[in-house]
Amino acid sequence: MHFTSESVETLVEQFTKLPTIGRKTAQRLAAYVLKMSRDDVAALAQALIAVKDKVKHCPICHNVTDTLPCSICRSPKRDHAVICVVEEPNDVMALERTGEYRGVYHVLGGVISPLDGIGPDDLSIRELLTRVDPAFRQVSSSPANGQGAESQVAEAALPYGDERPAIEEVILAVNPNVEGDTTAYYLSQLLKPLGVRVTRIARGLPIGGDLEYADEATLSRALEGRNVV
Amino acid sequence: MHFTSESVETLVEQFTKLPTIGRKTAQRLAAYVLKMSRDDVAALAQALIAVKDKVKHCPICHNVTDTLPCSICRSPKRDHAVICVVEEPNDVMALERTGEYRGVYHVLGGVISPLDGIGPDDLSIRELLTRVDPAFRQVSSSPANGQGAESQVAEAALPYGDERPAIEEVILAVNPNVEGDTTAYYLSQLLKPLGVRVTRIARGLPIGGDLEYADEATLSRALEGRNVV
Repeated sequence: MHFTSESVETLVEQFTKLPTIGRKTAQRLAAYVLKMSRDDVAALAQALIAVKDKVKHCPICHNVTDTLPCSICRSPKRDHAVICVVEEPNDVMALERTGEYRGVYHVLGGVISPLDGIGPDDLSIRELLTRVDPAFRQVSSSPANGQGAESQVAEAALPYGDERPAIEEVILAVNPNVEGDTTAYYLSQLLKPLGVRVTRIARGLPIGGDLEYADEATLSRALEGRNVV
Repeated sequence: MHFTSESVETLVEQFTKLPTIGRKTAQRLAAYVLKMSRDDVAALAQALIAVKDKVKHCPICHNVTDTLPCSICRSPKRDHAVICVVEEPNDVMALERTGEYRGVYHVLGGVISPLDGIGPDDLSIRELLTRVDPAFRQVSSSPANGQGAESQVAEAALPYGDERPAIEEVILAVNPNVEGDTTAYYLSQLLKPLGVRVTRIARGLPIGGDLEYADEATLSRALEGRNVV
């Protein structure tokens, strides 16, 4: 059964296309929109369009950004010799929240997942290899991909000018699940021959977690990765 | 910590203004919007604006509608002598889903709630009384309110022309909570003197519910409202 208003019904249908929003929530949101001021609704609509029109992908780290290159790749305060590889832009934000990490990032745009038909070529893996070893692009079979990202960016915008620092470490911060493990293994096999240190963020008991309620896989991994104190 | 893109950050802030959407969900939605096609995003933005620009309130039942009067008030198949009083447009939809009700509606736009500063004058109560007894508006102290709703609508659009049927029954379908009870009591005190039958939808155990897990208030009400079988 539908609202008596076509417009409300259309909005409900549009809302249900978003993830985590079912028909009940969509109706509740639509009812709220009805009570919002027109200005507030216009601001929301405008923000949606702006995301499609203004947001670009940083040619270096592939994170979402309004400026080219992104604020992290442009920052002279970051350590450009350390790259942290993540799956999605949300993961960059999660790591930035810690306030601990001072290196730069590389956003893959997903993980290797044969079941979903996502292979290495669908991710920005070639671009990562080119960042680590600029010589990589010469030997690459498909020179169109991974064309030196920096060449697309005015060198003046980069903190290191035309003298890019050699990459010392690549930290794999993919999610601790089957697809993440596969991607981490695949990347480490490609990166190690380039003479770079490859690490993966620790897996174990979450802080505030409880041994009693931890699942076996997490507990096994926590045991395996034990540290000397 | 924020996204490296201002536009994405603005969208996240806009999403968090909606009910049931916290910052985490807003980030997830924004990440999804980033992956949507521009056309799909434009359709969502357009639907939002359309709701503010096209949706009106039916001058008779105060439900949301794109046409004046609304499709239910205009329908010759409905029983225009029975009015079901609900709080919000969502409630009309819930009742329509049953497929049982053939009368018309009256949307109050809320319930009497002194704690939230909502009194009878903030709801469409005067308009309800005028629907039940057109003479009511003459004796009303504030003639600006509740000016005969039908007079705002071309009579040809109404299924009963200028001969409106007398209202036989007003069904109170407000929510079974303190505010709903207060509103139902207030309305019944005003409606009964107008010589109309006033009923309230039954409260009791929900279908599929379990005596063992029912709360005391529901169970008391179910006992009190028991029927001869």
